[in-house]
Amino acid sequence: MDAFSFCNPTRIEFGVGTIRKLGMELKKADIKSCLMVAGGGSIKKNGVYEQVCESLEKAEIHFVEGWGVQPNPTLEKVIELCELAKREKVEAVLGVGGGSVIDTAKTVSAGVFLQDIWNAFSGKEKIRNALPVYTVLTLSATGSEMNGNAVITNTKTMQKWGIYSPLIYPRLSIIDPSVQSSLPFKQTANGAMDAMAHILEYYFADDRAIATLAIDDALLKTIVEMTDRLQNNSGDLLARGNLAWCATLALNGISGIGLKGGDWACHDIQHAFSALHPEIAHGEGLGVIFPAWIEYMSEKDPTRFLRWAKNVWDEENVSRALHRFRDKLESWGLAKSLRDLGIKELELPQLVKLIMTSPRIGMVSRFTAVEVESLLMLAF
Amino acid sequence: MDAFSFCNPTRIEFGVGTIRKLGMELKKADIKSCLMVAGGGSIKKNGVYEQVCESLEKAEIHFVEGWGVQPNPTLEKVIELCELAKREKVEAVLGVGGGSVIDTAKTVSAGVFLQDIWNAFSGKEKIRNALPVYTVLTLSATGSEMNGNAVITNTKTMQKWGIYSPLIYPRLSIIDPSVQSSLPFKQTANGAMDAMAHILEYYFADDRAIATLAIDDALLKTIVEMTDRLQNNSGDLLARGNLAWCATLALNGISGIGLKGGDWACHDIQHAFSALHPEIAHGEGLGVIFPAWIEYMSEKDPTRFLRWAKNVWDEENVSRALHRFRDKLESWGLAKSLRDLGIKELELPQLVKLIMTSPRIGMVSRFTAVEVESLLMLAF
Repeated sequence: MDAFSFCNPTRIEFGVGTIRKLGMELKKADIKSCLMVAGGGSIKKNGVYEQVCESLEKAEIHFVEGWGVQPNPTLEKVIELCELAKREKVEAVLGVGGGSVIDTAKTVSAGVFLQDIWNAFSGKEKIRNALPVYTVLTLSATGSEMNGNAVITNTKTMQKWGIYSPLIYPRLSIIDPSVQSSLPFKQTANGAMDAMAHILEYYFADDRAIATLAIDDALLKTIVEMTDRLQNNSGDLLARGNLAWCATLALNGISGIGLKGGDWACHDIQHAFSALHPEIAHGEGLGVIFPAWIEYMSEKDPTRFLRWAKNVWDEENVSRALHRFRDKLESWGLAKSLRDLGIKELELPQLVKLIMTSPRIGMVSRFTAVEVESLLMLAF
Repeated sequence: MDAFSFCNPTRIEFGVGTIRKLGMELKKADIKSCLMVAGGGSIKKNGVYEQVCESLEKAEIHFVEGWGVQPNPTLEKVIELCELAKREKVEAVLGVGGGSVIDTAKTVSAGVFLQDIWNAFSGKEKIRNALPVYTVLTLSATGSEMNGNAVITNTKTMQKWGIYSPLIYPRLSIIDPSVQSSLPFKQTANGAMDAMAHILEYYFADDRAIATLAIDDALLKTIVEMTDRLQNNSGDLLARGNLAWCATLALNGISGIGLKGGDWACHDIQHAFSALHPEIAHGEGLGVIFPAWIEYMSEKDPTRFLRWAKNVWDEENVSRALHRFRDKLESWGLAKSLRDLGIKELELPQLVKLIMTSPRIGMVSRFTAVEVESLLMLAF
C-alpha cells in the first residue's frame, strides 16, 4: 500500500431527530451568529427549515438566510453570499441542504477572507482562513458533509472547478436520514450513483490497497442493495440510513486510502456536461460516463476491471459486469446515454474543448482530446 | 441504523520512512519538549529509536526518555512517568511502541493534570485536560494509535480497566509498516487476533448496521488473508501495510458505527486473564475466549452468527465457521484453550470473581457469574 496521510476532523451526528442538537452545538463553540445557506425551498416542505430555526432560536443564535443555491452551484451566488456574510458579520456558515448548498457554504466560509474567491479555484491564491462550517444534510450524494472539497461553476468561463482545504471541513454535520424519505426516487438514485462514482474514481488506481478495495467492494454492494430497497419503499428508514452513511464514507477519505488520489476523469468530464447543461444532475451524468469509461478502458486492458466485475457484480468477466451495472442504473430510471441526457451530437466538439481546459483528464490513463472524443462518442 | 455520533481527529502519517516527519510535526505545533514513552528496548534493535531521536534532534525538540513499559501496562509505571513529565515540564507525550506504550502515553498525558489518575478509570474523576499525544507505532494490534481509549492494570487491585476521553486521541500517529518486518510471527498473529476481536466485539450487536457490517466483513477477511501472507513471508511489506491499516480501522470508530458500542464481554474476561497472568498476551487470550464465546452464544441462538459464518468463512453453518476460525488460529500457533495459556483449573473461581468486579459483562448478552463460569469451563 502506498504512503498516505489521513485526517478527517468532521464530527457527524447521525440519526432521527438530531437536527435539534444544532443550536446548542453552535453555542458550545461560542458562535453567536451564522449565515444559513439554502436552496430553492424544499427544506420548507420537508420540515427541516422549521427544525433548524427552532434549534437556533432556542440557543439564541442570530442567523441570516441566504436562499437560492441551485444544483451545480454558481460563483455568482457564492459572491452574493460572501457579501451578505461580511455585511452581517456572521461568525459561521451553516449549509442546510444537499451537496450544492454545502459546497456553496464551504466556499463562502473561505470566500469572506479573499478578494476574489475564484483565485482559490484556479490555484492563484491559497485558502488561509475560513469561518467554521456547519451542515444539515438533506440529500446523501456528494459526501461534502464530511470532507474539505467544494465544486463551483463559473458560468462566465463555463468552468466547473473544485477547491480543497483542511480549513473547510465542516466542524459538525448533522445527518437525519428520515428527512430524505420524501425525496423522489430519481434523486435518491442520482445520489447513489454519485456516491458509487466517488468510490469508482479511486477503485481502479492501485490494486495494492487491498484493505481499501475490500471496503470499497462492501460500500458499492451496499449502495446498490439499499437503493433497490428504497425504490420499493422510499420510507425504508433502515435502507435510507445505511445508504446515507455509505455516501458519506464514499468521499470522506476512507474509500481512497492508498489509491493515489484517484482518477477523476469521469468527474472532470461530467462537470463539463453540467457546465454546458446545468439541468443535468451530477449523479445522472456520472451514470452515463462511468460505464462508458469502464467499457473504453477495459477494451484496452480488462484485467484491471476483473476484481470489480467479480466482487461487486459476482461476474467472471468485465462485459457481463458492465451489462449488470448499466441494467441496474436503467432500472433506477437513469439516463443511458448522452443523448438521453439531452446533449446533442453537434455539441460534442464544444464539450471536448471544455473538458480539455482541465489541467489533466485522468490518472489511471491520461486522456488526450482525441481519446475524450472517442469516449464521448461511445457514451453518446 | 441506530443514531450515532462520530468524530476522530487523529492524523495518520502512513508509509515507509514517515518517522522522519515526527520532529517537524511537533515543531509546527509549537511543541518544544516531550516525554518519550517506550517499552523494553526493542525499538533500539529495529532502528525506530534511532530514527525518532534523529528526527526530534533535527527539529530541536528537547525530549526525556521514559522506558520500561511492559505488556499489560501498569498503573505504577503511569504514576512514575507522570512524575517525570511534571518534573521535566514537558509539553507533549510521545509513545514509541505498541499498544501498551501508547496506552501508557495517553494515560500519562491526562495523568499529569490529576491528583490520582486511577480515579479516571474508576469513574470518580473526569479527564478535563491532557497534554497532546503523539505516537510512532511499532506493532499493529490494539488500534490505540487512532482512538481515545487506554487500558491500564492496577496490580494492587488486580483490575485491568479502561478510560476514554476525546482529549487523549493522538494528534498524530506515524505508522511505518516496514518497522514491523522484524517481529516474530507469533506477535504479528496475536496482533491480528486482537484486531479481529475489536471488530467481533461490535459485529454481533445489531444486524441493522448493514453498511458497517459489510465493512467489518471486509476487514475480518483481509486481516486473515494478510496474516496468512505474513506467516509465509514476514517481509511481505504489502501484506504488512494492509494488515496495519486494518488493525487501525478495527478500533478507530468506523467498525462500530451503529453497533450500540459493542459487546466487550470477551475483552473484560481477557483482561482478567492478563491481570492474573501478566505473561498472557492480550491477543492470544482473546483468541481463546472469543471462539468459546461464539460457541456458547450460538448454542442458544445460532441465527445471530450466521452472517459471520457465511460472509467471513464462506460456511453455511456456525459450527463449521467456528471450526475454521479455531483451525486458523491454531495454524498461526496461538493457544487453543485456557489450559494452553497456562491457566490452572483451580484458578477458575478466582477468575470468575475478578471478572465479576466489572460493572457488567457483555451487552449482546449480560453474563451472570454462573454463565461466566460455564464459558470459562468451555474455554478451558
